[in-house]
Amino acid sequence: MIKSRAAVAFGPGQPLQVVEIDVAPPKAGEVLVRIVASGVCHTDAFTLSGDDPEGIFPAVLGHEGGGIVEAVGEGVTSLEVGDHVIPLYTAECRTCKYCTSGKTNLCQSVRETQGKGLMPDGTTRFSYKGEPIYHYMGTSTFSEYTVVAEVSLAKVPKDAPLEKICLLGCGVTTGIGAVLNTAKVEEGATVAIFGLGGIGLAAIIGAKMAKASRIIAIDINPDKFAIARELGATDCVNPKDHDQPIQDVIIAMTDGGVDYSFECVGNVQLMRAALECSHKGWGESVIIGVAGAGQEISTRPFQLVTGRVWRGSAFGGVKGRTELPGYVAKSQSGEIPLDTFITHTMGLDDINSAFDLMHEGKSIRSVIHF
Amino acid sequence: MIKSRAAVAFGPGQPLQVVEIDVAPPKAGEVLVRIVASGVCHTDAFTLSGDDPEGIFPAVLGHEGGGIVEAVGEGVTSLEVGDHVIPLYTAECRTCKYCTSGKTNLCQSVRETQGKGLMPDGTTRFSYKGEPIYHYMGTSTFSEYTVVAEVSLAKVPKDAPLEKICLLGCGVTTGIGAVLNTAKVEEGATVAIFGLGGIGLAAIIGAKMAKASRIIAIDINPDKFAIARELGATDCVNPKDHDQPIQDVIIAMTDGGVDYSFECVGNVQLMRAALECSHKGWGESVIIGVAGAGQEISTRPFQLVTGRVWRGSAFGGVKGRTELPGYVAKSQSGEIPLDTFITHTMGLDDINSAFDLMHEGKSIRSVIHF
Repeated sequence: MIKSRAAVAFGPGQPLQVVEIDVAPPKAGEVLVRIVASGVCHTDAFTLSGDDPEGIFPAVLGHEGGGIVEAVGEGVTSLEVGDHVIPLYTAECRTCKYCTSGKTNLCQSVRETQGKGLMPDGTTRFSYKGEPIYHYMGTSTFSEYTVVAEVSLAKVPKDAPLEKICLLGCGVTTGIGAVLNTAKVEEGATVAIFGLGGIGLAAIIGAKMAKASRIIAIDINPDKFAIARELGATDCVNPKDHDQPIQDVIIAMTDGGVDYSFECVGNVQLMRAALECSHKGWGESVIIGVAGAGQEISTRPFQLVTGRVWRGSAFGGVKGRTELPGYVAKSQSGEIPLDTFITHTMGLDDINSAFDLMHEGKSIRSVIHF
Repeated sequence: MIKSRAAVAFGPGQPLQVVEIDVAPPKAGEVLVRIVASGVCHTDAFTLSGDDPEGIFPAVLGHEGGGIVEAVGEGVTSLEVGDHVIPLYTAECRTCKYCTSGKTNLCQSVRETQGKGLMPDGTTRFSYKGEPIYHYMGTSTFSEYTVVAEVSLAKVPKDAPLEKICLLGCGVTTGIGAVLNTAKVEEGATVAIFGLGGIGLAAIIGAKMAKASRIIAIDINPDKFAIARELGATDCVNPKDHDQPIQDVIIAMTDGGVDYSFECVGNVQLMRAALECSHKGWGESVIIGVAGAGQEISTRPFQLVTGRVWRGSAFGGVKGRTELPGYVAKSQSGEIPLDTFITHTMGLDDINSAFDLMHEGKSIRSVIHF
């Protein structure tokens, strides 16, 4: 049992409390990771708010981290002490029906216990004053030390800065992967991206990597447009500047609609608009954002019968252990400009201010340095 | 101007009236076709009922025909007098943005005028007692003679029986094509087909052609199951035999859901069930049925974010002029058993009884012999 400073979510709607928790040693197939840095993502805020119906408290949140292997449990063969790792909320066991399907990144090997805030054996490694603290998304990166399943860790090169590449653990990879892996945008295609938070901005990078001919960035906050253009957006549209529905605006701009659209907000009305602004005959729309509990998408079936395709993407369709090293390399070469995303850095004690900045729309990503 | 016996829809909700209409000669790019036989499809009934918001009266309905070229207009080069043809409600001009995209069969070359019941020059070739009669779906096969755009005619071999292969003008091709072209079902895949009308039964044939390992046929009328099994269904399910929602029944039968599902009814609740019974991670659902005006599909976006894909299909994604000859060949070889679909044949004077049989659920297809 080791002591670890951690930001604990004791209950919904409460600020995180930085306390010293106890972390038990890794069991078979598990790894103890010392977290070096962690981004703060909207999904953490969503769970903390209490709106996430699957939220479990008390828990150590955080799922966008980078760290160093401190100890390995029995049977762990793919990692050793000192390895640099990015924890994965989407595991990659390489043996389950999903991993071997060749069709999805949604490994289910640890899914059930992960959803309950537990390690694969059904117990937790975290406690505070003798009471159990739950895990979160299989990662719990808001702790100096965390325990993660071996299948949920991507090994990355040691020369890459963990305080930057931690962002590849969620948002940046999700946005880029949705473009490259899920939609498979081809050279010359036209693209519309709804919402210019971290995921939407990453989707712009993905569209640029795919050599899209036109990248239309859409947000109701025009302050986002400068950075969108810097990353590769060719057009920026504020729905508030138009009287017509946004889908009609995009259709008019593009002679019938875009080849691919991406919803990066989690708003079911925008999901509909994104589908409907895609081109008759072949337009594909990808839902990336996470909608509130119980909300539903809808459209006329005619939209699909006339050739549009509606998809979704989780973690960008990326298989973390296999593909993240490549993403790290692209961040090292500058093709994925992670610095652009990091608007704030702070210590663990200031983590609640990262949530405040997010809620106020003032940050893209705050990164906690441990 | 020639005289032609035709079944005319003079108004919504009224029986067709068999009268002698006048048919003007084909103009440039048009072809006069003598119809030999025509199937009667649900879409004809939908328009005749008045529920089709785009229905125009008075009109010559019918869109599942086979005929012989009687005369060609100026500039027609791909067809000559005596050629056997199947009229296409989805044209294939081979030059428009859609035809050249390589991504869709939804040729738009004659779409606008076709939707208004007119030939491409904006006028009609039909009249009765001097008053104009409108075209329907660019085909109007319920007439001894009809005029069709050259781009809307598939040339087929003369040794194939027109009174059978006329069914390839709509339902049979739509069902098979949705499986082979739209979903691209691969060998060994599992398939669920909702609704065992002509299109659903054709989808079974398509799934068998694709060598699907399991073909689950679903209908609330168990009388359809014998023919479904004959065509290749491996399982037949009547939702009325189960208390749970049908999607849960299919998921339980298939260890998590089917690889591909097809909605062949036009019921928006079934469209949702079809999507939701497809497998997490990779399931794809194809909407083929046409829903009533104003109806919408809906689901939780989580269904898509966890890897399901929602598509639609029109005329099975088939490019008629290019692909129908191959379908005709497969019907000649027996791979597409058209005889199974033809439950009734009758003369034009009895066409209203074909609609009655359809409404009573007693026919798969009635074929009118001229």
